[in-house]
Amino acid sequence: MHGVLLEVAYDGTNFSGWATQPGRRTVQETLDGAIKALDPNASAGRGTSRTDAGVHAEGQRVAFDASLPLPPRGWVLALNSHLPDDVAVRSAREIHAGYNPRFASKKKRYRYRLLLDRVRDPLLHHRAWRIGWPLDLEKMNREAAQIIGTHDFGAFRSAHDERQETVRTISRSEITRENERIVGFVIEGNAFLYNMVRILTGTLVDVGRNKLNEGAITRALQNPLRAEGRKLAGMTAPAHGLTLETIDLDLPEGTSESWPR
Amino acid sequence: MHGVLLEVAYDGTNFSGWATQPGRRTVQETLDGAIKALDPNASAGRGTSRTDAGVHAEGQRVAFDASLPLPPRGWVLALNSHLPDDVAVRSAREIHAGYNPRFASKKKRYRYRLLLDRVRDPLLHHRAWRIGWPLDLEKMNREAAQIIGTHDFGAFRSAHDERQETVRTISRSEITRENERIVGFVIEGNAFLYNMVRILTGTLVDVGRNKLNEGAITRALQNPLRAEGRKLAGMTAPAHGLTLETIDLDLPEGTSESWPR
Repeated sequence: MHGVLLEVAYDGTNFSGWATQPGRRTVQETLDGAIKALDPNASAGRGTSRTDAGVHAEGQRVAFDASLPLPPRGWVLALNSHLPDDVAVRSAREIHAGYNPRFASKKKRYRYRLLLDRVRDPLLHHRAWRIGWPLDLEKMNREAAQIIGTHDFGAFRSAHDERQETVRTISRSEITRENERIVGFVIEGNAFLYNMVRILTGTLVDVGRNKLNEGAITRALQNPLRAEGRKLAGMTAPAHGLTLETIDLDLPEGTSESWPR
Repeated sequence: MHGVLLEVAYDGTNFSGWATQPGRRTVQETLDGAIKALDPNASAGRGTSRTDAGVHAEGQRVAFDASLPLPPRGWVLALNSHLPDDVAVRSAREIHAGYNPRFASKKKRYRYRLLLDRVRDPLLHHRAWRIGWPLDLEKMNREAAQIIGTHDFGAFRSAHDERQETVRTISRSEITRENERIVGFVIEGNAFLYNMVRILTGTLVDVGRNKLNEGAITRALQNPLRAEGRKLAGMTAPAHGLTLETIDLDLPEGTSESWPR
């Protein structure tokens, strides 16, 4: 067996998220189906991020162990010919068998898109959270900057998150204008709690529309006990505005170059 | 009865184009269904451009005559609550009954998107034509400039186009870079023949990849007889890369301001 490491992109609209669940269409199950169709002896794919239903990805990372001796370019082309239109392998490289990208993740970048518009736009319907009221983007950007650094993000996680360790380090957090109508919230960090980016986004929007006072994020970071801190933060932004853009991995020596690039 | 003029946007992916056809899901029929649900006495919608299956629109223009006395804002909100996710009314205004935007069209702008990538991208799959080979964009832009002016476009139309008059005036035609991976071909003119933008795009791409020599468009414009000229032009680019962006209309006096804007 040899290991293969993939970069995988998907439109999350018609998937019940990444992780396989009985009776649901998931990205993991769809990808595993394509791998097994080519190489029945291959292992299941090991993903890095368990993205929720509706969340998109440009650079999910997935490793699996294969017996079929295809080069990276062969895996990209063969898997893409077996995958539906809403998921694709963007690149592949050779790696040691058993490699688990989840334990090699150094940094992830997410982008949350807001559509500033009073009426809905079918061309952006599944890609951005539409906000029909005015937002103070400069205030939101000042607020976003408070997220940078090492903090206890215990207040910024779903009731379903059971992790003990809630300290995370964020290296980038800013509001960017993509064009006249689309605003992005870009956040990069070593790891994220469950729903953390969506709750941070909801809090930034609540600050931008004056529903929460400036400093809300700092106040919630100072109260990391979920029961108290969560009340200081804002709503959970909907899934469909979120895209997992890239994951930086620790790649062991002997890993091949990726194809393409 | 009073007239209502709409700006309508749609994701063309799951529509068999604008115009009603028996047994097919079309934008026109979907919009007429929403209008009739609110106002059973209303006329059918009169569209401006008969976009093909898969073609998107940001600014299709549609007029209809209504008996229900709603203001523009009321039509926007009520129609959008009756329309599926992939079509929306972007704005509305009051106009005289019987107004037909098709005969009032002064200028239309289309954008054709090319995705420069060696592998497919599920997030752009239905929005851009993926080109996996290198393109000479400067050469394509010089070629696109040849389209500007008043020409007989008889060579740049589908075999199904039966129009006698094939002279059109193009005021803008250029290749623009939207970002590292997306290139746009933007064309603006008084009117277009059937498949004209898609055949112009296919010809530009063939010039950009050196399959046709520079000057192909000028040579085809000089041979506007379809049988000869069409052979000098390139392939018809696929529908899903094309978006109808805006239509400028002659608006009679007494037309209201639009809502929103």
